[in-house]
Amino acid sequence: MTTQPFRHVALIGLGLIASSISHALRRTGHDLRITGYARSAATRHRAAELGLCEVRDSAAEAAAGADLVILCVPMGAMEQVAREIAPVLTPGTVVSDVGSVKASVLEAVAPHMPTGVTFIPAHPIAGTEHSGPDAGFAELFDNRWCLITPSQDTNPAEIARLRVFWEELGARVDEMEAAHHDLVLAVTSHAPHLIAYTMVGVADDLRRVTNSEVIQYSAAGFRDFTRIAASDPTMWRDVFLTNKDATLEILGRFTEELFALQRAIRTGDGDMLHAYFTRTRAIRRSIVQAGQDTDAPDFGRHTRKSSR
Amino acid sequence: MTTQPFRHVALIGLGLIASSISHALRRTGHDLRITGYARSAATRHRAAELGLCEVRDSAAEAAAGADLVILCVPMGAMEQVAREIAPVLTPGTVVSDVGSVKASVLEAVAPHMPTGVTFIPAHPIAGTEHSGPDAGFAELFDNRWCLITPSQDTNPAEIARLRVFWEELGARVDEMEAAHHDLVLAVTSHAPHLIAYTMVGVADDLRRVTNSEVIQYSAAGFRDFTRIAASDPTMWRDVFLTNKDATLEILGRFTEELFALQRAIRTGDGDMLHAYFTRTRAIRRSIVQAGQDTDAPDFGRHTRKSSR
Repeated sequence: MTTQPFRHVALIGLGLIASSISHALRRTGHDLRITGYARSAATRHRAAELGLCEVRDSAAEAAAGADLVILCVPMGAMEQVAREIAPVLTPGTVVSDVGSVKASVLEAVAPHMPTGVTFIPAHPIAGTEHSGPDAGFAELFDNRWCLITPSQDTNPAEIARLRVFWEELGARVDEMEAAHHDLVLAVTSHAPHLIAYTMVGVADDLRRVTNSEVIQYSAAGFRDFTRIAASDPTMWRDVFLTNKDATLEILGRFTEELFALQRAIRTGDGDMLHAYFTRTRAIRRSIVQAGQDTDAPDFGRHTRKSSR
Repeated sequence: MTTQPFRHVALIGLGLIASSISHALRRTGHDLRITGYARSAATRHRAAELGLCEVRDSAAEAAAGADLVILCVPMGAMEQVAREIAPVLTPGTVVSDVGSVKASVLEAVAPHMPTGVTFIPAHPIAGTEHSGPDAGFAELFDNRWCLITPSQDTNPAEIARLRVFWEELGARVDEMEAAHHDLVLAVTSHAPHLIAYTMVGVADDLRRVTNSEVIQYSAAGFRDFTRIAASDPTMWRDVFLTNKDATLEILGRFTEELFALQRAIRTGDGDMLHAYFTRTRAIRRSIVQAGQDTDAPDFGRHTRKSSR
């Protein structure tokens, strides 16, 4: 299938993901126009300084004339942005997003789209614990998955255009239903993030262990948790509020299992613990084999050396 | 204070930590003898092939004549090894260990030490998710903390010798009471490990999400958890069984906090979530400033590039 490339991409919201899309688009060498808008004047100013895009003074001005509009705002802001840009969208335009929850974004955005405009939710599974326009880089999506969750009646040609777009940014693309996406991500990302946030909060609360001790002796384990727990608060608030059901279901299962392991510790059931830990180790091996992480030892400490 | 260096180091247990001690000792360039023993014949054979030490056929033979004996076995094996080596230890010998729990190792080992032999528990806070003699490397302890938990009546000169020993391996050394060490580590390492094990177990159990989906789309978050949950099952079983009280206390507080956050999600209390996540982000900044981790973005993904 020959797909028609996008000629003018509008980025609404200019944080880590939008900035990385801009850098990755430049890397393709294609001749295309990028316009953008962020609610914060400081962010707009910085995006202009970085040359990320032609910065406009409203979402509607940024979206005007674009054949691909990507909503890169927190989940809670999606509906308002959809309302704002709807009047300037023309038939044939594709609207997409980069949010971490897909069922709720479909509900929030799709009803506002004019006839002839296709909304296709997308979720590049890539990010860092940093945020803002300065945090982006061209390689962010390389070899990462981008999940697209079109409706059953979405035009296959438009899906193909969006797929090629993400592949050119370096991503691998897969399609699934929005509700299934939200359950998968609750397991692989949303529940782990809440758990990490919780553990870091516990450490901060504990009065008999000083913060400086927690910080100095943050062995692998807690150190990795703090990295996760440093992610953008607004984005994550919205993730939990919009993927409420799946996240709560997974957390319920998590608590159940945790209680079983706590009980094994309390009763001294070493065999149960050993069997459990042996099983989880095997899962790690599968992930390394699937190419989603490195087998390099040392919990990423080599990063420190190479970045010095 | 001038300290007398150790001339003959015996390593009982030849896994990741002992192997790294051997590599780091070679790096110092000091003229010293290293003997060692492991329970498994395969490990002994491999340690000899790697030239880690002069491999002996029993713990007692390895410890004979050493002025520093380091117990590098799982916590559950400490007492038996202490019994085995006690008869060959001579006055002036320092015995230490590398276990992750300190109060229980004092109880297990100290009563078996002959007169004139000093037992000083130590815990290098360093490791990877790999184990065995092949997993060691000389840089493992560089800039990591080694916590020493001597008794009040331990000879300061012997403490100083052990401190210098670890500093020469690259570590920073601090002293604290054994019980306090166990509480600090329950927060920074033991509870986080159990939580990571649990979350990985939940993912594996969930039938509506396939393992291949969990593995393919293991975004940062779950991916970091699987790394932690791949650690040595025997070592971690023993950590939880020997640091039972502190671990269960921290897990109790963790569950309490998690329920509060779950409730905020269920009731849609976005302000509470945002405030919580903002606080945990600040803790992360403190850890980066304390030099215990890198500020490099992208959850360690640059590791992949540099290791390719």
